[in-house]
Amino acid sequence: MGLLIVGSIGLDDIETPFDKVKNALGGSTTYIALAASYFTGPVEIVGIVGDDFPKEHMEMLENHNIDIEGLEIVEGAKTFRYGCKYHYDLNVRDSLYTNLNVFEKFNPIIPEKSKKSSFVILGNIAPQLQSIVLDQLENPKFIVCDTMNFWIEGAKQDLLKVLPRVNVLIINDSEARLLANEPNLIKAAHIISKMGPEYLIIKKGEHGALLFGNNMIFSAPAYPMENIFDPTGAGDAFAGGFTGYLEKNRDFSFDNLKRAVVYGSVMASFCVEKFSTKGLENLSFLEIKNRFIEFRELSSFN
Amino acid sequence: MGLLIVGSIGLDDIETPFDKVKNALGGSTTYIALAASYFTGPVEIVGIVGDDFPKEHMEMLENHNIDIEGLEIVEGAKTFRYGCKYHYDLNVRDSLYTNLNVFEKFNPIIPEKSKKSSFVILGNIAPQLQSIVLDQLENPKFIVCDTMNFWIEGAKQDLLKVLPRVNVLIINDSEARLLANEPNLIKAAHIISKMGPEYLIIKKGEHGALLFGNNMIFSAPAYPMENIFDPTGAGDAFAGGFTGYLEKNRDFSFDNLKRAVVYGSVMASFCVEKFSTKGLENLSFLEIKNRFIEFRELSSFN
Repeated sequence: MGLLIVGSIGLDDIETPFDKVKNALGGSTTYIALAASYFTGPVEIVGIVGDDFPKEHMEMLENHNIDIEGLEIVEGAKTFRYGCKYHYDLNVRDSLYTNLNVFEKFNPIIPEKSKKSSFVILGNIAPQLQSIVLDQLENPKFIVCDTMNFWIEGAKQDLLKVLPRVNVLIINDSEARLLANEPNLIKAAHIISKMGPEYLIIKKGEHGALLFGNNMIFSAPAYPMENIFDPTGAGDAFAGGFTGYLEKNRDFSFDNLKRAVVYGSVMASFCVEKFSTKGLENLSFLEIKNRFIEFRELSSFN
Repeated sequence: MGLLIVGSIGLDDIETPFDKVKNALGGSTTYIALAASYFTGPVEIVGIVGDDFPKEHMEMLENHNIDIEGLEIVEGAKTFRYGCKYHYDLNVRDSLYTNLNVFEKFNPIIPEKSKKSSFVILGNIAPQLQSIVLDQLENPKFIVCDTMNFWIEGAKQDLLKVLPRVNVLIINDSEARLLANEPNLIKAAHIISKMGPEYLIIKKGEHGALLFGNNMIFSAPAYPMENIFDPTGAGDAFAGGFTGYLEKNRDFSFDNLKRAVVYGSVMASFCVEKFSTKGLENLSFLEIKNRFIEFRELSSFN
């Protein structure tokens, strides 16, 4: 009945020009679930970790009303690990290593009770796995999908099979240009919309986000940030905030989708203020609501 | 009493991947004046051309209620000429040639009647000349200033003398980063504000524009354009629309400055739809107003 999230869960080593962390909680599912947890719950997650995955992370997730029954723990195996280093220009990062570990054999099995989920977020995993998830669902009402350059370049045919099955595709501007093979973002959006998703959201980092659908366009501003400590997970926090808000009120009007895009942007702005998932762990709904109002003041005119 | 514009007037050869024009009307003053002419008038211009400057251009300007009394025509000399070629990515252009001609000796003399102008736009000319213009004015109320990388790098000390004397500095994002020597645009804006201008507008091309001042920020969206035929003059059209709108209603509240930024964006969007100044020559105020409403629909949420 609620919100189901399927994606990666991992442990990250992250270095930025300001600081670094080792063994921090990472993965698309964790960021998405934490961001969504402020709007709705219990949020159900499906993922895989090794027996080295710290218990404290599981407790933290459960404390946010996140149902981890679908989290498979493989004895004697290691959790997915990723290391990266951001440049002074935080839009640029070098991947230091990617150890897939248990994630390499990830075959998402949706628990019986979650098959009836009406809201689903397909995190950034292989499009073929995204299809396998959708095949197991009984009657999903609203499906949100993320992807990345790696899959657009390496598994485009699989991705093209997923897109007609989803309600919203969320990608960034460079991914949109690559997927459409078109430099003009507005033209690219039209091309991607013809690939099947009902709505398309293009995230533009420090320039905000665009929502396309129903022959309408919405341009959301970016929060003016002087200090971004760690951009990791911003896109996932966006997807979690966007979908969590929609799951709560189930209003699919374009006006409400606009609000959802802004709540997604709000959660992304909190995410990048601290390292790892820390920026999403201790928020109050009042803080979230106040930042939503700040977004409105930032962009409103009459 | 009205709006005075001082800047370049020239003839351009422009090539884009879509088409090319030769000997087209160009220069910052022409774009600024045409854009402003839809809001207020007569707009007074000060500039210099040679005796090769086509009469038809002067007639066209006069037909837009632009007062060209301050346009000096130098017998036996040639008009400023500029040639450039845009890449498939229209954000990139190669300058093919720059023949300053009469513009090399441009020493702006403000006609007696224009010295009382209360609104002034200092187009993109040497900061030293911008100061010379300001020295001649009797009691200007609102001064808008443009500049570019060339002056930031080559005449920074002169520019730093102009900035405390102006109400609004309008530059693009790369110019803001260069002037502040700071990659984060929000930090850069704070640094530039301390250089003296009361308000700062940072144009971000396809990502809209930011207005800073009075400890407030406004983020204006960009018009979603599928076809940009010629980006030349877009920034000047922005300055003209912004200032022309303010000159008309003389309301300096932040709410009205926001509207002025959007009217600036509206004029820039019309400008790039056609080659040279053509996109600014035959508009109705209804078209302008309707596009303003489109901007509002594009970015409003509640």
